[in-house]
Amino acid sequence: MVSRDIMRSTARDLRKYYSPVLNGELRLDTNTNVLGSNPAAMKFIRDQRTDLSEYPSTYSDGLRSSLADLYGLDTDNFVAGSGSDEMLDISFKTFTEWGDGCLFPYPSYSLYDYFAKINGCKVSFSDLTEDFQLDVGSIVSSGAKIVIIASPNNPTGNSFRQKDIEEILAEFKGIVIVDEAYGEYSDRSMIPYVNEYSNMIVFRTFSKAYAMAAMRVGYAAAGRDLADMMNAVKIPYSLNSLSEGAAIAALRDQDFVKKSREMVLRERPRLASGLSELGFRTYPSDSNFVLAVSPISHSALTDSLKQRGILIRDFGNRRRTENCVRFTVGTGDMNNRLLSAIRGILEECG
Amino acid sequence: MVSRDIMRSTARDLRKYYSPVLNGELRLDTNTNVLGSNPAAMKFIRDQRTDLSEYPSTYSDGLRSSLADLYGLDTDNFVAGSGSDEMLDISFKTFTEWGDGCLFPYPSYSLYDYFAKINGCKVSFSDLTEDFQLDVGSIVSSGAKIVIIASPNNPTGNSFRQKDIEEILAEFKGIVIVDEAYGEYSDRSMIPYVNEYSNMIVFRTFSKAYAMAAMRVGYAAAGRDLADMMNAVKIPYSLNSLSEGAAIAALRDQDFVKKSREMVLRERPRLASGLSELGFRTYPSDSNFVLAVSPISHSALTDSLKQRGILIRDFGNRRRTENCVRFTVGTGDMNNRLLSAIRGILEECG
Repeated sequence: MVSRDIMRSTARDLRKYYSPVLNGELRLDTNTNVLGSNPAAMKFIRDQRTDLSEYPSTYSDGLRSSLADLYGLDTDNFVAGSGSDEMLDISFKTFTEWGDGCLFPYPSYSLYDYFAKINGCKVSFSDLTEDFQLDVGSIVSSGAKIVIIASPNNPTGNSFRQKDIEEILAEFKGIVIVDEAYGEYSDRSMIPYVNEYSNMIVFRTFSKAYAMAAMRVGYAAAGRDLADMMNAVKIPYSLNSLSEGAAIAALRDQDFVKKSREMVLRERPRLASGLSELGFRTYPSDSNFVLAVSPISHSALTDSLKQRGILIRDFGNRRRTENCVRFTVGTGDMNNRLLSAIRGILEECG
Repeated sequence: MVSRDIMRSTARDLRKYYSPVLNGELRLDTNTNVLGSNPAAMKFIRDQRTDLSEYPSTYSDGLRSSLADLYGLDTDNFVAGSGSDEMLDISFKTFTEWGDGCLFPYPSYSLYDYFAKINGCKVSFSDLTEDFQLDVGSIVSSGAKIVIIASPNNPTGNSFRQKDIEEILAEFKGIVIVDEAYGEYSDRSMIPYVNEYSNMIVFRTFSKAYAMAAMRVGYAAAGRDLADMMNAVKIPYSLNSLSEGAAIAALRDQDFVKKSREMVLRERPRLASGLSELGFRTYPSDSNFVLAVSPISHSALTDSLKQRGILIRDFGNRRRTENCVRFTVGTGDMNNRLLSAIRGILEECG
């Protein structure tokens, strides 16, 4: 047995990531688009004529150019790659020295911590306030090299106040990453302001509203200087040709994104009130998921739903989300099935 | 203008990677498979029924299982990801502390240096001997944390002596990465020995003989302990579902790989002797490319071929490959076109 002592010291305690054994369950655990495959992306793939033997565009110029058109920015404002997880990894590799501090609001996306540690950073957390908003003062005074603000935030679901984000951008001395993974479900974006804030990087993904998690496409928008530094550090050709082409096709079909968003806006209050009626305390959401305090044990609920063929995500063992579970907003039928299954479980619990 | 002083110190001098502006040229510059798209991979893609909205397998279990079958090893002997470039990045992140030394034979693949620097390593080089073989003594005594041995080597084309690799595996105190990107063109592989050498990691790619560079698939084989550490550090889901599925399909069609290899073995001596007749000094190759000293200026040759619609790779400005260029072995027709174009250029030079 080879000891983990040979590993990078900051990575030694890492274990593998969430990887459930699947058996055809309804997946309300990963906040993907429940309407299924992005149709324009699928058409692009099935009509495929790319020469698979040749390397992709080194910096995904086609996709970056399409993004520039969508947002009225320049190709050089963008970095594209294999999911916004790659954007995270690139950001730490580009902008941190070994031992630099990174600050993350808590609770937020668990992989921030993971990638920061892998890349040799020291991690600290700034607790969200009681109503899950940013503690601006503690962030600004932290002295960290990078702060990451997910808005809407995961797993809490809410957006942060615009004035708080702007205050952090103005006062924080390091780099501010605004992670808009769920941005398509919100009314706001910081992307139009990338040329105004020279310390801001905005992340987006095709894994949520664009219904392309299988293809692993994400991007970062930033002022040209920061984007250029990140492109110099990123793995050349990290985005494969099919994922790039599928993403370009998907960008042209904004109707699908609009339809997906409208479905979530319609179903989310219905799901939340159904959960409330069953005794859950739900938190406000600007995303395609709802965090809620379970009226019974979080783990019993999660396990019982799995036995009934429905996966949800259990956050109940973590500080600040004690006894909480997270539900992806499904279609009307999915939500009915979920609520009915929960009702059955609660009745069995007596 | 934001200064590069905000960048990680070891990454500040990096610039973007090779990214030629293309205009329909015959590409003999990237050592991809000139027979074009892997047919089994293409069939898999066009028949696509994957739900694109859902995340891929977190650790590419399907592909790792297929690789285990191919080599008679276990799934847990493998790490799969987005090209063997990701394997490189993971290796540095898993096994090096900031400032650790990494040793690369010289000349070899230029991205070793790039990824090592990005990940905070100190890089040193061990010059190959006059006949482009390993200087075993300097490698063993280097005290480096990682050494990477590309066999067959790029850009020189030759394999290293088996007994030299074995001596390094036995004597070197750090981790030995054997990069077999061109392994399908050679008769040898270290993959069958991953359970014998607890300090060895072997890289392979689908970008060369498998004709799938567009899909970005690579893998590492190692003892289970090292593979497990690398999987814990790699970006979860880094390999998209289509690339994984296409790679599994391609593994089942070994006839295509065999045909590709036979084409190279048949055409390589013909290309080499054609070049020799034109005044080039060619180096022996076990790969799908040939390194050669140009009888005229390397840059004039490369530029003139580009004007005639043929791309080759210019190594002429680098130490040890002075005035050298590298040609991918084409099909018979491609090689005839190349040799004829070179003949024209030499005649014009008079």
